[in-house]
Amino acid sequence: MIRIVMSGAGNMGRQIMAAAEAADDLELVGALDGLAEDGVIDINGRQIPLRSSLNALAEWSPDVVIDFSNAEWTEQLVPAAVVAGVRPVIGTSGLSDDAITSAEQQVNEAGLGGVLAANFALGAVLMMHLANIAAPLFDSVDIIEQHHDGKVDAPSGTAVATAQSMRAARDTDFSRNTAERHNVDGYDSRGAALGGASLHSVRLPGLVAHQVIIFGGADETLTIRHDSMSRASFIPEILRAVRAAPQLDHLVIGLDRLLGLRTD
Amino acid sequence: MIRIVMSGAGNMGRQIMAAAEAADDLELVGALDGLAEDGVIDINGRQIPLRSSLNALAEWSPDVVIDFSNAEWTEQLVPAAVVAGVRPVIGTSGLSDDAITSAEQQVNEAGLGGVLAANFALGAVLMMHLANIAAPLFDSVDIIEQHHDGKVDAPSGTAVATAQSMRAARDTDFSRNTAERHNVDGYDSRGAALGGASLHSVRLPGLVAHQVIIFGGADETLTIRHDSMSRASFIPEILRAVRAAPQLDHLVIGLDRLLGLRTD
Amino acid sequence: MIRIVMSGAGNMGRQIMAAAEAADDLELVGALDGLAEDGVIDINGRQIPLRSSLNALAEWSPDVVIDFSNAEWTEQLVPAAVVAGVRPVIGTSGLSDDAITSAEQQVNEAGLGGVLAANFALGAVLMMHLANIAAPLFDSVDIIEQHHDGKVDAPSGTAVATAQSMRAARDTDFSRNTAERHNVDGYDSRGAALGGASLHSVRLPGLVAHQVIIFGGADETLTIRHDSMSRASFIPEILRAVRAAPQLDHLVIGLDRLLGLRTD
Amino acid sequence: MIRIVMSGAGNMGRQIMAAAEAADDLELVGALDGLAEDGVIDINGRQIPLRSSLNALAEWSPDVVIDFSNAEWTEQLVPAAVVAGVRPVIGTSGLSDDAITSAEQQVNEAGLGGVLAANFALGAVLMMHLANIAAPLFDSVDIIEQHHDGKVDAPSGTAVATAQSMRAARDTDFSRNTAERHNVDGYDSRGAALGGASLHSVRLPGLVAHQVIIFGGADETLTIRHDSMSRASFIPEILRAVRAAPQLDHLVIGLDRLLGLRTD
Repeated sequence: MIRIVMSGAGNMGRQIMAAAEAADDLELVGALDGLAEDGVIDINGRQIPLRSSLNALAEWSPDVVIDFSNAEWTEQLVPAAVVAGVRPVIGTSGLSDDAITSAEQQVNEAGLGGVLAANFALGAVLMMHLANIAAPLFDSVDIIEQHHDGKVDAPSGTAVATAQSMRAARDTDFSRNTAERHNVDGYDSRGAALGGASLHSVRLPGLVAHQVIIFGGADETLTIRHDSMSRASFIPEILRAVRAAPQLDHLVIGLDRLLGLRTD
Repeated sequence: MIRIVMSGAGNMGRQIMAAAEAADDLELVGALDGLAEDGVIDINGRQIPLRSSLNALAEWSPDVVIDFSNAEWTEQLVPAAVVAGVRPVIGTSGLSDDAITSAEQQVNEAGLGGVLAANFALGAVLMMHLANIAAPLFDSVDIIEQHHDGKVDAPSGTAVATAQSMRAARDTDFSRNTAERHNVDGYDSRGAALGGASLHSVRLPGLVAHQVIIFGGADETLTIRHDSMSRASFIPEILRAVRAAPQLDHLVIGLDRLLGLRTD
Repeated sequence: MIRIVMSGAGNMGRQIMAAAEAADDLELVGALDGLAEDGVIDINGRQIPLRSSLNALAEWSPDVVIDFSNAEWTEQLVPAAVVAGVRPVIGTSGLSDDAITSAEQQVNEAGLGGVLAANFALGAVLMMHLANIAAPLFDSVDIIEQHHDGKVDAPSGTAVATAQSMRAARDTDFSRNTAERHNVDGYDSRGAALGGASLHSVRLPGLVAHQVIIFGGADETLTIRHDSMSRASFIPEILRAVRAAPQLDHLVIGLDRLLGLRTD
Repeated sequence: MIRIVMSGAGNMGRQIMAAAEAADDLELVGALDGLAEDGVIDINGRQIPLRSSLNALAEWSPDVVIDFSNAEWTEQLVPAAVVAGVRPVIGTSGLSDDAITSAEQQVNEAGLGGVLAANFALGAVLMMHLANIAAPLFDSVDIIEQHHDGKVDAPSGTAVATAQSMRAARDTDFSRNTAERHNVDGYDSRGAALGGASLHSVRLPGLVAHQVIIFGGADETLTIRHDSMSRASFIPEILRAVRAAPQLDHLVIGLDRLLGLRTD
């Protein structure tokens, strides 16, 4: 049985706590949230202690603390966890490179283990990993990302990150067809160009979050596609990290490394 | 047995003749081509008479003449066919509206039948027909046309025609998401806008000719897709027109009308 | 302003009431449910009267009654609605042909209008309508229906209904490839055969409800695909029926007829 | 300039010779074919010497011999090439494990390099490589392979090989939904089961060779798809092997190893 504290009791924290409570091998012993009042929080019908002070961490002495909070809180949480001998699983977004390096040093020097990842969504991380393998082997690629019509930016951050990491996996830009003649005045329908990849953004009601990467070769195409129906897809990977943390002897950075996709 | 003459002995004419020769119920009796020298042409190992003068039409007196030539030749062919009592199946591209109206009048007044269509490709015609039915029932649509990387214009003529005919099937423009923030400087990845539809052009080696139309609704999408692997897809519909011609009592304009998709 | 009563206050009825309440041109005046106790029901924060007796219908005298209940209750509701001059919009499933004919007669003889449909999901109804148009024009078809892995039957009812209605739209069975050699012992991977169509069932976590229909022709394929992300997709069409009902002079049977897709 | 001899002058050999002739850095000096008569063979308008005896190999003394012949001929070719100091690029199908091991020993002991691969099609090899990476990370998978309706076996050899190699990349069978109720009598539409993967075979005119692998996870799916429009897709990889051979110091077995996808 792995004893857990959740740091960050917002919407995402509550989903994670509900999943942890439902798991037979995990025991949720408390929740930390700097913005909350001390009290209890109802998770799947059980009353979980809720505290706003990091002192509670040493008091509860869990095996693992899961942190989905904010950059400022995470920077305070890491030393408190290390002092208390608690292994961190960190998914807070917007951490600076310095903050990540510092967390790594503190955890490693204490001889503890843990996981820190900007993205715990298996499908998205795996899609990019596979695309990076294919990128040097095909000369041309188009990315078609498809989201609900409430999305106000384009192309999606994931599509931009995919194009950048595919480009970094190659020696040169992809080869890109550009249209000599535009059949709708004032528009270039070939999409945004990034490292020679063409990025297209579909926006429609009825869509959730989808990305299609099509590589073009000699009389063949290879397509990698990710369809995400909700944001729940990150939860199994957080639980995977929690279960891995007690066996780790250093802070693993990135879901791809946790999954063994990268070994550097 | 339907006796046929082919008008236009270029690449397309030869493919049509080869298909006609291979059909049990069709007999190819000659080929006409204003640019060719009189002689014979080898079709599937059989020597077919080839003539450059329209006089041959009356001489051969076929049931049907198939015409894939050019606008100028077609305008001479129609009266020659009507005088000779030969039913025309015309697929010549670039005919003016006047030329089409004139052909219709001549054929109808002679009490003959025939078929004239700008596009004999079943899949493309049907895709547009189905899209026009769906167009008034969904508020939003994106078209993703995908072609080989040798194509120099964008979006494709078919995509533009699809957007225009979908718009004509509605009272108003489609509702279209526009991005407030562009994540790749200098590019709008939302594609070309036409009647509120968004048109995206994918260009990759390994592709042939494909079009995807995605309609967005309440928690659902409807997709119509056409994949064409070669230009051979028009041949069965030309043979369908040839077989229908002897029963027709007027010039049918458009493959959709020949197929009974339109009755006006 | 159209005044509405909801008949059937289960999960679906509540979703419909919430949507009706949110619409500016609709006024929800009460809910009927034979199984409920008289009282009130909270819809979007407003207390709606709830009654178990059909007598309430005449008392409330709405313009339209929406009925998503059960076959037995619907058979009692229709005469009560007709007597009270209330136009019905009926989506109850499992109605017998006799019950449907009887409802039609009662509504029509009273000079009222209304709508009765087994399926109010736009995408599913439209997919089948389009498939029926394509069915006579292609010789071969495969249907790939894809659902979450909790589904216990296969192929889906929609896939079976699609195959049956496509077959009815043709003179003959589709032409179907059957494998002469099976490379996995004990299995025929060509799917279920129905009218010459091949039906394949994909079952995976992460899927919701999807159906792909691929027609095969000469060097081309035509694909019609429906992706449904939730059951909410029927709500806009129920509201469409409610808004149409006051102008109708007979009971329209089927969403395809309400949408003008069928005129028989 | 790399000097080449082609071993095997059938249809595939001719395509390879045409591609080699068209490349600026390759010089085709002759063709070997045990079944042919000595003479010449026309490749892109140039007359290439054609010989039926392996003695020609030492005489022509090329840098590389490309072999697409049959198992018996390949077993004779390898020692002849090694003696003549010629590096082999072998794509002959149906070689026994013993023949492969023997070829490897001979080439390596001679201090030569070369490439031997059962499959030179980049897209197919890469699809399987990517699928093997994803296989341990998802609990469920369906494979939908799609081919022209002239194919007489099902599922395709590639689909079977994909399922087997994905299973080998995991500790356990995939988790597989089985239908409790079959809606078309006498048929199980869930496809063939292999290692817990479900294999579906679509057969339609208009298709060429396509495979879709869908992995199912928590509210997400990951799809890997390969579309092959012709058999020409193996040619660039054969040329890649030819260009690599002069730098190699051993016989590389498998296109995945040549591409650096595997390092064992």
